[in-house]
Amino acid sequence: MVRARGARVHNLRDVAVAVPRGAVVAFTGVSGSGKSSLAFGTLFAEAQHRYLESVSPYARRLLRQMEAPLVDSVTGMPPAVALEQRRSVPSSRSSVGTISTMSNLLRMLLSRCGDYPAGAARLDSDAFSPNTPAGACPECHGQGVLHRVTERSLVPDPSLSIREGAVASWPGAWQGKNLRDILGALGHDLDRPWRELPAQEREWILFTEEQPVVTVHPEREPGRIQRPYRGKYSSARRLVLKAFSESRSEATRAKAAAFLEQSPCPVCHGHRLRPEALEVTFAGLPITELAALPADRLAALLHPFTAQEGPTGLLTADLADRLAALRRLGLGYLSLDRAAPTLSTGELQRLRLATQLRSGLFGVVYVLDEPSAGLHPADTEALREVLAELRAAGNSVFVVEHDMAVVRGADWLVDVGPGAGAGGGRVLYSGPVDGLRDVAGSATRRFLFAPPAAPPSRGRTPSGVLRLRGVTRHNLHDVDVDVPLGVLTAVTGVSGAGKSTLLGAAADAAAADPSVGRVVTVDQTPLGRTPRSNLATYTGLLDVVRKLFAATDEARRRGYDAGRFSFNVASGRCPTCEGAGAIEVELLFLPTAWNPCPDCHGSRYNPQTLEIAYRGATIADVLALTVDAAAPFLADVPAAARVLTVLQQVGLGYLRLGQPAPELSGGEAQRVKLAAELHHARRDRTLYLLDEPTTGLHPADSEVLTAQLHRLVDAGATVLLAEHHLPLLATADHLVDLGPSGGADGGRVLATGTPAVVAATSTGPTAPYLAAHLRSD
Amino acid sequence: MVRARGARVHNLRDVAVAVPRGAVVAFTGVSGSGKSSLAFGTLFAEAQHRYLESVSPYARRLLRQMEAPLVDSVTGMPPAVALEQRRSVPSSRSSVGTISTMSNLLRMLLSRCGDYPAGAARLDSDAFSPNTPAGACPECHGQGVLHRVTERSLVPDPSLSIREGAVASWPGAWQGKNLRDILGALGHDLDRPWRELPAQEREWILFTEEQPVVTVHPEREPGRIQRPYRGKYSSARRLVLKAFSESRSEATRAKAAAFLEQSPCPVCHGHRLRPEALEVTFAGLPITELAALPADRLAALLHPFTAQEGPTGLLTADLADRLAALRRLGLGYLSLDRAAPTLSTGELQRLRLATQLRSGLFGVVYVLDEPSAGLHPADTEALREVLAELRAAGNSVFVVEHDMAVVRGADWLVDVGPGAGAGGGRVLYSGPVDGLRDVAGSATRRFLFAPPAAPPSRGRTPSGVLRLRGVTRHNLHDVDVDVPLGVLTAVTGVSGAGKSTLLGAAADAAAADPSVGRVVTVDQTPLGRTPRSNLATYTGLLDVVRKLFAATDEARRRGYDAGRFSFNVASGRCPTCEGAGAIEVELLFLPTAWNPCPDCHGSRYNPQTLEIAYRGATIADVLALTVDAAAPFLADVPAAARVLTVLQQVGLGYLRLGQPAPELSGGEAQRVKLAAELHHARRDRTLYLLDEPTTGLHPADSEVLTAQLHRLVDAGATVLLAEHHLPLLATADHLVDLGPSGGADGGRVLATGTPAVVAATSTGPTAPYLAAHLRSD
Ligand SMILES: Nc1ncnc2c1ncn2[C@@H]1O[C@H](COP(=O)(O)OP(=O)(O)O)[C@@H](O)[C@H]1O
Ligand SMILES: Nc1ncnc2c1ncn2[C@@H]1O[C@H](COP(=O)(O)OP(=O)(O)O)[C@@H](O)[C@H]1O
Ligand SMILES: Nc1ncnc2c1ncn2[C@@H]1O[C@H](COP(=O)(O)OP(=O)(O)O)[C@@H](O)[C@H]1O
Ligand SMILES: Nc1ncnc2c1ncn2[C@@H]1O[C@H](COP(=O)(O)OP(=O)(O)O)[C@@H](O)[C@H]1O
Ligand SMILES: [Zn+2]
Ligand SMILES: [Zn+2]
Ligand SMILES: [Zn+2]
Ligand SMILES: [Zn+2]
Repeated sequence: MVRARGARVHNLRDVAVAVPRGAVVAFTGVSGSGKSSLAFGTLFAEAQHRYLESVSPYARRLLRQMEAPLVDSVTGMPPAVALEQRRSVPSSRSSVGTISTMSNLLRMLLSRCGDYPAGAARLDSDAFSPNTPAGACPECHGQGVLHRVTERSLVPDPSLSIREGAVASWPGAWQGKNLRDILGALGHDLDRPWRELPAQEREWILFTEEQPVVTVHPEREPGRIQRPYRGKYSSARRLVLKAFSESRSEATRAKAAAFLEQSPCPVCHGHRLRPEALEVTFAGLPITELAALPADRLAALLHPFTAQEGPTGLLTADLADRLAALRRLGLGYLSLDRAAPTLSTGELQRLRLATQLRSGLFGVVYVLDEPSAGLHPADTEALREVLAELRAAGNSVFVVEHDMAVVRGADWLVDVGPGAGAGGGRVLYSGPVDGLRDVAGSATRRFLFAPPAAPPSRGRTPSGVLRLRGVTRHNLHDVDVDVPLGVLTAVTGVSGAGKSTLLGAAADAAAADPSVGRVVTVDQTPLGRTPRSNLATYTGLLDVVRKLFAATDEARRRGYDAGRFSFNVASGRCPTCEGAGAIEVELLFLPTAWNPCPDCHGSRYNPQTLEIAYRGATIADVLALTVDAAAPFLADVPAAARVLTVLQQVGLGYLRLGQPAPELSGGEAQRVKLAAELHHARRDRTLYLLDEPTTGLHPADSEVLTAQLHRLVDAGATVLLAEHHLPLLATADHLVDLGPSGGADGGRVLATGTPAVVAATSTGPTAPYLAAHLRSD
Repeated sequence: MVRARGARVHNLRDVAVAVPRGAVVAFTGVSGSGKSSLAFGTLFAEAQHRYLESVSPYARRLLRQMEAPLVDSVTGMPPAVALEQRRSVPSSRSSVGTISTMSNLLRMLLSRCGDYPAGAARLDSDAFSPNTPAGACPECHGQGVLHRVTERSLVPDPSLSIREGAVASWPGAWQGKNLRDILGALGHDLDRPWRELPAQEREWILFTEEQPVVTVHPEREPGRIQRPYRGKYSSARRLVLKAFSESRSEATRAKAAAFLEQSPCPVCHGHRLRPEALEVTFAGLPITELAALPADRLAALLHPFTAQEGPTGLLTADLADRLAALRRLGLGYLSLDRAAPTLSTGELQRLRLATQLRSGLFGVVYVLDEPSAGLHPADTEALREVLAELRAAGNSVFVVEHDMAVVRGADWLVDVGPGAGAGGGRVLYSGPVDGLRDVAGSATRRFLFAPPAAPPSRGRTPSGVLRLRGVTRHNLHDVDVDVPLGVLTAVTGVSGAGKSTLLGAAADAAAADPSVGRVVTVDQTPLGRTPRSNLATYTGLLDVVRKLFAATDEARRRGYDAGRFSFNVASGRCPTCEGAGAIEVELLFLPTAWNPCPDCHGSRYNPQTLEIAYRGATIADVLALTVDAAAPFLADVPAAARVLTVLQQVGLGYLRLGQPAPELSGGEAQRVKLAAELHHARRDRTLYLLDEPTTGLHPADSEVLTAQLHRLVDAGATVLLAEHHLPLLATADHLVDLGPSGGADGGRVLATGTPAVVAATSTGPTAPYLAAHLRSD
C-alpha cells in the first residue's frame, strides 16, 4: 500500500490515506474538495521530489526551488509520472508526431525502407526532419517561407522625401532622426522625393552592408542645444532583419515583420525539407504527405506492410501499434503533423496516455487528471482498458476522475469531501468502489449508485434564429445550421466531430448578426496569470470594499483614499512584492513559480495601510475571508451582498475573496466567470459559448452549473455549448448532433431537435446513450 | 524479474539476462569484462532514459542528446538511481552537510531551538546559510575574506614614474600604453617618480570612479604612424576588480588577484555568516563549530536532546539517525563542513549511500559501483546491512562489486566474462550465489569459494630508509615513520585513519631526500580527458607506428612524413573532428558528451592519409587492433614489441591500441600507467605511491597487479601503498598500521613490521583479519 499521513497541502486537513499499488485508484470529490491536492499536490509531488533529489545532483540543482509538499510521511510510493491537463504547455515546435515519438519512426521508415529515385543515395533519418541541419531546406533554413525586404516593403510611398519619412521602416523619435542626420552628414539629399534619388543611392541607403561612422552636426531644433556627435549608419534592411531575428520583444518583432515580404519557399514549397528528402516515398507518398494523413488512414496504409520480414515489417508494425492506441483513445482523426498547441487539453492528455502504452515503464505510479475529458461516452470503455493495460504492465494508476463510468471501473476509490475548500479536505472513504454505498456524507455516492433523474428538457420556444450557412472550416464542409436564440442548445458528437469548430463558426456569425448583442465565451482558462488578479478584483468586489475602508474615520484623518487600499497602487502596497503577495521565481526550463513574499507574508499591503480597520478587520483580513464568511459581514452593503450571493449560488462559497487567480482550478474559474455574468446587467441578447463546460466538474458541480446556465437563458440570453455529459444534454432545449465520427469522417449534421427527437432519430453514436439516459428518468 | 535481451553496449555480446527485483544483485567479473556495461550502461541507462522521457517534456528537452542504449528489450525494470563513483563531480560549493541534507536540518535546529542572546529576534533558517542573502555576512558577502586594492598592492615600487611602469597592475602592451597616453592627455606628469606626485593625483589615478573620455595624440614611435583617437580612462582599481570578478579566463583572474590584498573578514572572522547568526548557539556551540565537529562527536553532543518533546527532540533525533548512518558506513570521522571535492570517490559514494537510507524511495533500483571501495574489512558487514535495508524498504539493489565478502552476502549473482574486452561480454552465470560453484569458466568462482593461498611476504631487506619525522597534517600529530627503500610497504587502517595523509607526507619528504630518485604517483585518474589521448599515444607506441608508415614507398613518394600519421597534426587528420574521431556535445547541466564524427566515422584521418598501407593495413586499421592482435603483427619491430608485451603482462591484451582515454576504467588506466613504468628505463631509486590500487579490481586483476608491483621492486624501485585488500597486504615486505579509528581517533602508528609481526602485535582492527588470512594459507 501507498500510505500518506498528515497531508496538509492546500485545504487538506491532516489527511491520512492508504491506497493499493498495482491498481487503478480513482480520486473523486466535488470541485475544490481537495482531490487534486491529494493525488497531485501530495502523492505525486512527494514522489517526484524524492526521486529527482536522489537521481542526480544536476536535477537537484535545477529543481532547488521546488519545495517538498506539506505532509508528515509518505511510504511505499514509487516514482511517479504525471499526465496532467492544466500544466501541460507544449512547445510550439512539438506536434502529435513528436509527442508520440512516431515522427522518429516515420523518419526511420523513409530512411531505411523508402523508395529512392534511381541512383539517389540513401539518406540518414535526420535528413527527414526540418529541424536538423541535415534535413532543413537549404533555401529557407527549414522555415518553409522566405522573409525578404524589398524597396517596396521598406518605402511604401516613394513620393515622400527622406525628411518626410520615405523610409517607413525606420524607428521613430530620436533613432529615426539620428539616421536621417547621418544620411545628411554623408551628403545625401534629404528633401528630394525618394523616387527621384539615383538608383545606386537608394540601393545603398536601403541595403548596404557597410556601417560607416561620421561626425553629425544635428540640425538645430528651437530651444535645444545639440552638440556634434559620432553616429553609425546601418541600412534599413539591416535594422529590420536585426529587429526581426534578435529582439526579445514580441511587439518589436511584429513591427519589423510588417516590413518583410513573406513568400512560400520556392525550393521546398513550404514543406521545410531538403528536396532530396521530399523525393523519397513510402507506399507512394513522401513523408510530408504521410504525416498529414489522419492516424486512422495512415494505419490503413501501413497495414499491408506489417507482415513483411526485416525493417519494413518491424517499423510499420511498431507504427501501426502506436496508431491503434490513438484510435482506441478516440484520437484516430489526428494527423502526425498536427501542431501541439492546436490540441485541446483533453486531446493532449490522451495523446500522452496513448504514448505511455508503449513506454515500457514498470513499477511507476501514473497520475492522471480526468483522462475522460473531451471523450465521448462511446469511447469510455476503451479508456478503461487502457488504464488496465498500464496496470497489467506493472504500474499503478491514480486518476482524478468525474466520469462515473470510469470511476466504476476502478479497483479502488478515494472520495474526498464532503464539500469544497474549507468545507472539504477530508478523506470520506478509501476502499473498493462498492463500499461507498454506505458513506452517507459523500456527494459522489448518489451519482455512482443512484443517478438522479434528469430534469426534463423544457423545450423553450426560440425568440429568433442565428443562421450559419455554408460553413467550411476544418472538417466542416458547406454545412448549414440554425442556432435558435433565447434557448439552450447543445452540440454533440465524438471527439473530433467538429463541435468546437461549429462553436467558432457561430461566434463569427453572431458578431455579424444584429439580433445577437454581446458574444461571451465562458471557458476554463485562468482569470489571470499572476497573483494580482483574484476573485475580488475580477468580480469588482474589491472596488466596493476599498471605498468602505477609505470612508473610515482614521483613513479620512490620514488622507488615505480608496486607491490606497488597492494592492496595485504604490502608496498602500508592500514595496517588496509590489502588492503581489508573492515573488516570481524564474526556473530554468520550468514554468515560472511564485514564492510567498518574505516581507508582507502574502498580505500584500504595507504596515501603515494595515493600521486602518473596518469593523475591526484590516483590508488584508477582509481579503482572507471566504465568500460564505463575507456574506454576513457585508450583508448591509448592497453592492457587495449582490456579488457574494451570486458566488454562493454558483457553489463557490468556500473560496477566499483574495484567492489569487492562479490557485483556482479551471472549473472554479469558469464558475467565477459565470457568476460575473449572472451579476451583469445586460444579459438578454447575449450569446454565451461554452466548450465542454462540465470538464473537470464532479456531477454534483455539473448540476449546479446546469442550473446557472438555465438561469442565464431565463434572463433572455442564448446558450450554445459543446458537451458529452448526458445529464446536461437531457436538459437542453435543442441539440445539434455532429458526426458520425471524428476528422474527415465527421463534420456532418446528423440530427437536430429536442433531446428526445435526436435520441430517436440520429444515427450517430450519441443517440443510444442519450436514449438510455432519458429512459432512466 | 528484470529481463534484458539483446544487450550490445560496448563489449556485450547480445546478452540476455534475468535478475530478480527486490533483491541485492551482485555483478562480478574481471576488469573490462563488461559488468558495468551491463549494470550501468544497459539496465540503468535504459531505466533512466525511459523514466525521464515520460516524466516531463522539460527533462526530455534537456536530455535530448542522450541516446538510448543498444539493447533489444528491457522489461520489468523500475526507475533507477545510480550511485556511481566515476562520474560523480561534486560542485566545490557542496559539502558533507549539503550532500547529506543535514545542513538544512542543522539550520532549522539553530533557527527554532537555538539559544538566542537576550532580546535577539528569532532568525529564519536561511539566516544560518552563508549562501543566502539572509545569511551571508554583509561585510564580505559570505566570502569570509575581503579583497581590496591598496596603493601598496597596485604600485609596489613608488620610486618608478608612470612611464617606467609604476602602476604594476596595468595590462601590458597596447592597453597599458593607451592608459599612459590618456593620463598624459589629461595633463599628468608621466616622468616624475610616483611617490613625488601629489596625494590627490595619485588617489585619482588609482581609485577614481570617473571614466573621462579624451582625445589622445599618441606619442610617436619610430616607424609607426599613429592617428589621434578618443580614449576612455578607467582607474587601476576599476580595471583590477573588473578583471577579477568578470573575466572568464582563469589566467586573467589569477593575474588580477595578485594585485588584491586578501584579509580575513573583520566582521565574521572567516565564518561567512552574519554576526546575529553566529551569536545563536545550540548545546553551547554556534553553527560553525557544530558543523566542524566529526560526525561521531556531533552525534554524541546531540544525543541527550533526542528524547525531548517538540521540535528539539524531532530535529536532533533526525540528525542523530543520519549521523549514525555515516558512522555505520565508516564515515564517522567526517565533519559536515568538509568540502565535497576533498573526499575520495569511495567516501563520496558511501556518503550518498548513507543519505539514501533516509530518502524514503520505494520501488526503485539502486545501482552502485563498488560501494566497498576504501572500506576496511571491519566495516564490510555494516555495508551489507545497509544494502539489505534499502532492499527491505522496497527497493532493488544492483552492485558492481569485487569484495567477495559483499558478493557472498548478495541474493543473486551475475558473473560476466570470462575475460576482458572482446574476450568477455558474456553472462557466465545468473542465479543464487552458491550456484557459481559449478561454473568452470568463471574467474570469480575461485575467489568466492576457494580463496587461493597468498604468496608469502618475501621480507626483502631494505636498501635504505626514507625518514618521516614530526609529521603533522590532518589527523596526524607529530608522527615519526620510517619508510624502507627498495621494498614494498603497505599502510593499513580503517577509512579516515590517515593512510592517504601519510602517503602525501612521504611524497613531500621524498622530494627533499637525495636517496630517492623520482617520485611517481600511480592512480586511477584518466590518462586524458579527451579522445585525443589513447593507449597508443600514452605509451609512445604511436610514435613507433607512425615511423613505419612514413617509411613505406608510397608515403615517401607522396612526401608524407611521420607527422602526417598523427591525428594531432592538421595535414593528415580528418578536418571535421580535427582528429578527435568524435565531436564534443555540450549538454546543459550535464557532463560533456562525445558523439562519433559524422565524416571519418571515428577513423580520425582524412581519406588521403588512409590511402597509405603498411602490410596491408591503414593507420586507422592498426589503431583498431587489440594489443593481443598487434603483438604478432608488430613482433619484428622491437620498440613496438616491448610495449605490447608489457601491456599483455599487466592483463590489458584486450584493449585496442587506439582506445580513447575516456573509455578506460580507472583500473585500466592504472594498469596502463604501470605498464608505461615497467617499460620505463630508469626504475631504480624511484618511489611509487599508490592509494588503494585494488579499488575497482576483481581479485584476479589484483593478483596481476600485485605481481607487477613486485616486479617494480625487483627492478630496484620502492613501492609505498595504502590498501585494505588482504591478499596484497600479505605479500608486503613491510606494513605500517595506522589507527585505531578514523579522524581524531586515528592517525597513530599502532605497529610496523612484516605482515606476520603486525598481525601478531597490532591492537588495530586490521590485525585479526590479517591473522586469519595468513592462517588460511
Ligand atoms: N496553489 C494553491 N494555493 C492555495 N490553495 C489552492 C491552490 N490550489 C488549489 N487551492 C485550493 O485548495 C482547495 C482544493 O483544491 P483542489 O485540490 O484543486 O480541488 P479539486 O481537485 O478537488 O477540485 C480549493 O479550495 C482550492 O481553491
Ligand atoms: N487548429 C486546428 N488545426 C487543424 N485542424 C483542426 C484544428 N482544430 C480542429 N481541427 C480538426 O477539425 C476537426 C474537428 O475538430 P474539433 O472541432 O476540435 O472537434 P470536437 O470539438 O468535436 O472534438 C478534427 O479533424 C480536428 O483534427
Ligand atoms: N564508452 C566506451 N566506449 C567504448 N568501449 C567502452 C566504453 N567504456 C568501456 N568500454 C569497453 O567495454 C569493455 C567493458 O567495459 P566495462 O563494462 O567498463 O567493464 P567492467 O565494468 O567489467 O570493468 C571494456 O573493453 C572497455 O574498454
Ligand atoms: N583535504 C582534507 N581536508 C580536511 N581534512 C582531511 C582532508 N583529507 C583528509 N582529511 C582528514 O584527515 C583524516 C585522515 O584522512 P585520510 O588520510 O584520507 O584517511 P585514509 O586515507 O586512511 O582513509 C580524516 O579525519 C580526514 O577527514
Ligand atoms: Zn524551403
Ligand atoms: Zn510583500
Ligand atoms: Zn564576513
Ligand atoms: Zn572526423
